[in-house]
Amino acid sequence: MSDTRYTYEQLCSFSESIFKSIGCSPEHAATATKTLLSADLRGIDSHGIARLSGYVRLWEAKRVNATPDIKIIHETPSTAVVDGDSGLGLVVAPFAMQVAIEKAKTCGTGWVSVQHSNHFGIAGYHAMMALEHDMIGVAMTNASPLVAPTFSIDKMLGTNPICVAAPAGQEPAFVADLATTTAANGKLEMLQRKNADTPDGWVQDADGNPSNDANILKKGGALLPLGGDREHGSHKGYALGAVVDIFSALLSGANYAPWVPPFPAYVPMPAQQPGKGIGHFLGAMRIDAFRPADEFKSAMDHWIRGFRSCRTLPGEEKVLVPGDPEREYEAERKLNGIPLLEPVVADLRQLAVKFSLVF
Amino acid sequence: MSDTRYTYEQLCSFSESIFKSIGCSPEHAATATKTLLSADLRGIDSHGIARLSGYVRLWEAKRVNATPDIKIIHETPSTAVVDGDSGLGLVVAPFAMQVAIEKAKTCGTGWVSVQHSNHFGIAGYHAMMALEHDMIGVAMTNASPLVAPTFSIDKMLGTNPICVAAPAGQEPAFVADLATTTAANGKLEMLQRKNADTPDGWVQDADGNPSNDANILKKGGALLPLGGDREHGSHKGYALGAVVDIFSALLSGANYAPWVPPFPAYVPMPAQQPGKGIGHFLGAMRIDAFRPADEFKSAMDHWIRGFRSCRTLPGEEKVLVPGDPEREYEAERKLNGIPLLEPVVADLRQLAVKFSLVF
Repeated sequence: MSDTRYTYEQLCSFSESIFKSIGCSPEHAATATKTLLSADLRGIDSHGIARLSGYVRLWEAKRVNATPDIKIIHETPSTAVVDGDSGLGLVVAPFAMQVAIEKAKTCGTGWVSVQHSNHFGIAGYHAMMALEHDMIGVAMTNASPLVAPTFSIDKMLGTNPICVAAPAGQEPAFVADLATTTAANGKLEMLQRKNADTPDGWVQDADGNPSNDANILKKGGALLPLGGDREHGSHKGYALGAVVDIFSALLSGANYAPWVPPFPAYVPMPAQQPGKGIGHFLGAMRIDAFRPADEFKSAMDHWIRGFRSCRTLPGEEKVLVPGDPEREYEAERKLNGIPLLEPVVADLRQLAVKFSLVF
Repeated sequence: MSDTRYTYEQLCSFSESIFKSIGCSPEHAATATKTLLSADLRGIDSHGIARLSGYVRLWEAKRVNATPDIKIIHETPSTAVVDGDSGLGLVVAPFAMQVAIEKAKTCGTGWVSVQHSNHFGIAGYHAMMALEHDMIGVAMTNASPLVAPTFSIDKMLGTNPICVAAPAGQEPAFVADLATTTAANGKLEMLQRKNADTPDGWVQDADGNPSNDANILKKGGALLPLGGDREHGSHKGYALGAVVDIFSALLSGANYAPWVPPFPAYVPMPAQQPGKGIGHFLGAMRIDAFRPADEFKSAMDHWIRGFRSCRTLPGEEKVLVPGDPEREYEAERKLNGIPLLEPVVADLRQLAVKFSLVF
């Protein structure tokens, strides 16, 4: 790749400056940056600093509140509902996850549904906050409607990701972080850059016909739920995306289904919104609320090693454990820097000019 | 269909007699029967009374304890680990779900991981126990290894289903009950009876090559995770099946991955088992631990009606909401009886002879 590489520290410093420029407190700017850049480190380029200007445009459109009063509006010993006050999801979700962790400390588990938030970056960052506490972390969010349920022409759900992170002992943690679609938007963008078609089962066109056009979303098409079509289990991907919507928004009072606010600030807000902002769901389960953490972590090591020692399909080097690819990206990028595509660099330079900063 | 139909009451009475014949208490026989037959009512024929003789064979092989001492061996306000004492999962799982519900009443949510159990029927039955309490129910179980992870020849996971049930108001409840594979075993059995091939992406052969042979499991082949192959997201189905294994068995101390005991009693137990029996994970979340139940249920009605009013693909009558097909089966079968295939009837007659009963 001929992309320019930047150190994590360079990008951090710039991102913090931008968030402070829109009015975030230094603490919020640091949290938002750490959350955002965790995507770049982990190789999920579509959700990282490439989106920084998108967040700024949401602030300009008054859809993001840079100085939110984030608070618990209802709680029980093991649950809470958090009102994000229209803040950056990058800041609201870590707040909510911390609430879940504190509840898990006293009560075994903690489950927090969040209303009135915005896009929260990658689910993995939030779920992984639980790991250092010897807890299993869970993170979900709904998102604007790009996905057509099985048999539907209309787009009703977002890519609605689920992440579950579980600590191991000597092995690295298990981190399953997945959109509930066959492929997420970032994969389409990669194909667009290569001028390549999508495989079957990823997208459909505006009339619901199967399509292989990587640009089909811009033409009114839809992403397909994990499975692709009914014969290959798309009703399961659809059901999982629906569960994410219910936990994130129906439990909290956020917007759901086709009423979830869009990320691009130029897309008008849906009419007759039934809730507030975007919804998330964060959970933490203390391992020793079930069994001693050392026992669990030894079992996880044994489990992971079992998968690593599987015989592989011809041409494949190894069976991956969820979290492996992202961890390899992180190790390499911490060492060699984070590669940015030329359009992303140009975008960040424009941002710098806007706020009289240097990039 | 020319299958003979039996009333629910006929099958209930027979199933209870069989469970009592192997030594179950009347109470356990009734619970096991209700759990088992919920599959027949809901159209999941592979998991219902067709398996009754299989449970009896597990008892004959001393892998099922008909008089288990099911108990909580560890707990916190929102969690518990239940030891099933090698009892029928059909009895152990409802016990554990009841524990989860009681904890949710006092603490907002309840989460129970179960060790030392056996196959628990359909996940849906257990998750739906939460509905009458205005709670969301969650049920998972691991199962014997039939599924090859992405890039693997070896079978490492079961079909590891997940069910989430959420109450609605005027609309029927949302019930997503899904195996984390492209297709579960029951679908293969249907194709076997028709002498038909499977679609692509359902199975692979003993060497890991793509296959369309509906009998491939008997020849050393494997089911594929939801998604089918890497290009279509099988790493996501694999990750979800792994999460079910971790919640059900690593948290409880049950067997996991390829060490989960097989359902057919003639299949030898895996060597060097790391845990006890099969594992389940049951959860209950009280709706009003998040927001007033009426508000949530009105929002669920609105959500469901939104999906029902989607434009449909050509040739499709309607967009289904998770739980619709099973509910339609249940209404029809309660009215007209439950159809049983001739081999299932023959099997039940043999059971009747064995225990000097009439079928």
